[in-house]
Amino acid sequence: MDVLLEILTTMLEQFQKPTLAFLIGGMLLAAVGSKLEVPAPVYKFIVLLLLLKVGLGAGISVREANLLELAVPAVGAAVIGVAIVFLGSRTLARQRGVSRVDGLATAGLFGAVSASTLAAGMAILDSEGIAYEGFIGALYPFMDIAALVTAIVLARLSAERRAAATLSPGRTATMTMRGGLGQGNRGASANGELAKTILIDTFRSPAISALLLGLALGVFARPDVVYDSFYQPLFQGLLSILMLIMGMEAWSRLSELRGVAHAYLLYGIAAPLVHGSLGFAVGLGIHHVTGFSAGGVVLLAVMAASSSDISGPPTLRGALPEANPSAYVGTSSGLGTPVAILSIPLFMALAEIFIGFWSATK
Amino acid sequence: MDVLLEILTTMLEQFQKPTLAFLIGGMLLAAVGSKLEVPAPVYKFIVLLLLLKVGLGAGISVREANLLELAVPAVGAAVIGVAIVFLGSRTLARQRGVSRVDGLATAGLFGAVSASTLAAGMAILDSEGIAYEGFIGALYPFMDIAALVTAIVLARLSAERRAAATLSPGRTATMTMRGGLGQGNRGASANGELAKTILIDTFRSPAISALLLGLALGVFARPDVVYDSFYQPLFQGLLSILMLIMGMEAWSRLSELRGVAHAYLLYGIAAPLVHGSLGFAVGLGIHHVTGFSAGGVVLLAVMAASSSDISGPPTLRGALPEANPSAYVGTSSGLGTPVAILSIPLFMALAEIFIGFWSATK
Amino acid sequence: MDVLLEILTTMLEQFQKPTLAFLIGGMLLAAVGSKLEVPAPVYKFIVLLLLLKVGLGAGISVREANLLELAVPAVGAAVIGVAIVFLGSRTLARQRGVSRVDGLATAGLFGAVSASTLAAGMAILDSEGIAYEGFIGALYPFMDIAALVTAIVLARLSAERRAAATLSPGRTATMTMRGGLGQGNRGASANGELAKTILIDTFRSPAISALLLGLALGVFARPDVVYDSFYQPLFQGLLSILMLIMGMEAWSRLSELRGVAHAYLLYGIAAPLVHGSLGFAVGLGIHHVTGFSAGGVVLLAVMAASSSDISGPPTLRGALPEANPSAYVGTSSGLGTPVAILSIPLFMALAEIFIGFWSATK
Repeated sequence: MDVLLEILTTMLEQFQKPTLAFLIGGMLLAAVGSKLEVPAPVYKFIVLLLLLKVGLGAGISVREANLLELAVPAVGAAVIGVAIVFLGSRTLARQRGVSRVDGLATAGLFGAVSASTLAAGMAILDSEGIAYEGFIGALYPFMDIAALVTAIVLARLSAERRAAATLSPGRTATMTMRGGLGQGNRGASANGELAKTILIDTFRSPAISALLLGLALGVFARPDVVYDSFYQPLFQGLLSILMLIMGMEAWSRLSELRGVAHAYLLYGIAAPLVHGSLGFAVGLGIHHVTGFSAGGVVLLAVMAASSSDISGPPTLRGALPEANPSAYVGTSSGLGTPVAILSIPLFMALAEIFIGFWSATK
Repeated sequence: MDVLLEILTTMLEQFQKPTLAFLIGGMLLAAVGSKLEVPAPVYKFIVLLLLLKVGLGAGISVREANLLELAVPAVGAAVIGVAIVFLGSRTLARQRGVSRVDGLATAGLFGAVSASTLAAGMAILDSEGIAYEGFIGALYPFMDIAALVTAIVLARLSAERRAAATLSPGRTATMTMRGGLGQGNRGASANGELAKTILIDTFRSPAISALLLGLALGVFARPDVVYDSFYQPLFQGLLSILMLIMGMEAWSRLSELRGVAHAYLLYGIAAPLVHGSLGFAVGLGIHHVTGFSAGGVVLLAVMAASSSDISGPPTLRGALPEANPSAYVGTSSGLGTPVAILSIPLFMALAEIFIGFWSATK
Repeated sequence: MDVLLEILTTMLEQFQKPTLAFLIGGMLLAAVGSKLEVPAPVYKFIVLLLLLKVGLGAGISVREANLLELAVPAVGAAVIGVAIVFLGSRTLARQRGVSRVDGLATAGLFGAVSASTLAAGMAILDSEGIAYEGFIGALYPFMDIAALVTAIVLARLSAERRAAATLSPGRTATMTMRGGLGQGNRGASANGELAKTILIDTFRSPAISALLLGLALGVFARPDVVYDSFYQPLFQGLLSILMLIMGMEAWSRLSELRGVAHAYLLYGIAAPLVHGSLGFAVGLGIHHVTGFSAGGVVLLAVMAASSSDISGPPTLRGALPEANPSAYVGTSSGLGTPVAILSIPLFMALAEIFIGFWSATK
């Protein structure tokens, strides 16, 4: 009972903090039909600044970090990304009314990472004075790319298998073979090609390339002055605007879910909690092995709970044009993202209970 | 003579301060035909930040304020809003060449409040170190909504009366009945409906909903950190850009007034001064009853003097489609707003004379 | 050898500083095909803030400056602008495959000034703690306008001479006479008209009018508070975004140069270094006569090395519609601007050798 009470208290307190309060405020605005809107160019610019900030911060830390210290959580992040997609392929993608490719696309999006959700987690920990490894931002691409590549490869393999099954009775192949995939032993090299294409597309996507640029500048240049005078001080304020936008977006996306199977509703609400717990468990393991901080464990859980809202959708739309965007984007932006952001206090409460912020970091 | 000199000196000094200097600079740029422009998405975003800032600041203050202390100026603000519209319906709306609906729409806009003008007033008082009640921003919707609703209801009633008069001789009604208004005893309930629609539309307008969101977040959440680190420090700078835009806009709107009656020119110049004096008088009364600060009296006068530039026009266009926008928007943006902003030092001089900033606030 | 080593060391160090690192980062992003983009309205707004900042800073300094102190560098700046265009008309504009008007337009652009490059120079000097005259920003229009007017007048004169030559054999004039230019003794007054039109167009261009507005506000108003609280603190951060955009732009413009003569490639790379050295020499002369600071000499060289990227192209497009924009804009944005920015450390090294920052400014 005390534990539950503690969790509830932490969550209620956090709902009053700027980050979550602006998210809820945005949802309320959309719910009452407000005509307020943040122009798209401004939204894009805020996301760019936020990604550069996370990348620069991570890069500056990586410069001074022991690379071995970074290696273990990086492998952990990639493993979580892959695991989330396999989990989705066994659960969501097997439900009635859910096509295999739609289910896998949704699982890929939930395995990928939301920079905004991660930034929200960092802002909340910062405002509580809870320390975490500076290189955390550098873990983002490991989980993100692992999940997207896994989801797309699984979807392609499944499409190919079905195509082979359809063809085997001897009918003439009249279907369009997207991506030029063949059958039989040509599959392996085609999958290699495919994985390469996905990797390149992902690296070129605005979100990942902004993050990697920030990372590279942080590691190889000396951007500390401009980081301290511009990116760091504006971070919380710009994040508050972003949360407002995401809250409004989440509410308006909810209506898109009306047309799709109920399985998506359940997945959108439950998956962030399940994935976050998985991320928390992996983080806890790393904590016991390498002394990974309690704040770092929380952020790994937040990354796992989050679903990609910026870089993921265009990557999936490009690689899996047959998947239904209103299913995967609706589930992710309408349910996954707000649930993930609102569950940040939950992971903080878990970390307080299992590790303790003050004993672990001081 | 000394009083006049004091007023003139205050005004000249203020014209050199950033807020007014950027407004005049914008007018000069437009006058010499500069091709400088601030992109519309940036303009919208600046207005959003400014409204959130005013709302948040007011909300944080309301949280700690005695609600009774707020009640008296709030009623005063609403009374001023209604009074300005009735004044306009007796003066402007009765001039030759001014249709009744155009006159009432213009009066409604001049009764409504400009967030930018209010922000300019706050910035000028801040830079002079003059204190005012933190909850002032919370008075905005009272005056704004009271004026818009009064103007639209009066215009509707007048249209209905004329329609009834036209119909009474027994001719067939072929005119379009906007808003589904009937005659006779159906009028009362239709007006109730209408007022409700206007209220909902006004609350959903971008400006009012941004302000109320800020207010709600300030009251119910704890946005103090992000307010102090982001909204407050950026305020003066963003306002300087906004003043630049408004100056350019004012100059270019002036040409729209060429086609309309001269009565609009006179109203656009005189109304801000008359309304501001009315607001000042009401504020002075409240000062003597409740100890309302001299800075608060100035800002109430500034709100009364200002005419709505953001939320008002779309509300009026929606509710009174038969009114001519180049009359009411031209008069408001081309004359009313710059005159109101430039007369802020006048109200400060009046407050200095009638109350005294230093004796009243220290 | 030691001198070369010193220059190389200074340059390598500077490449790690935010300003140049973001420029190189932008070029790398474009080179690997990243889909990252900064929305155009945001780009325009950043440029506006930067020009206002440079103008305000210069205006505040001019207010307190000895105007005679400003006069000598201003004349020097104008002379450099004219000299660069004449140099280009003797070299680039006489190459095979380069039409006279294209060559002169390109020379005009290279004589004009880039606010971004100048801002980059200021940011780098600031971060090194190297002092320079506050009024430097006020020199911008002298060099910029002198170069553009010279280039356009030369191009018009040359077109007229050719037209006269074509007409003299007695053929009927069927060509369109742009700008209404006549022949013979009508030429002089037409040129006067033309120069006036160019001047007015240049003053009305967004870049020059933003700069002059800042300058005027700095001189005649008291914008110091908003300058210190907004324009100055945001400067380095916004510049880092601008450098990112310019790096991406430079890379994508390079491809436009494929279709034009090789002479443009050589000019684009060599001209910034030659012009910068010319500017440095003039600055060094002024230093010996009036005690112009070492930082001021560097910035005069940077202005000379830079080529106009914002105000120049539209002015030229308006005045010389027959010139090929992919030649002059491609050469300037694709080669001239990045070479100029990357050569800032070179001029710093020269100033260190010829004047010495610490002996000269302390």
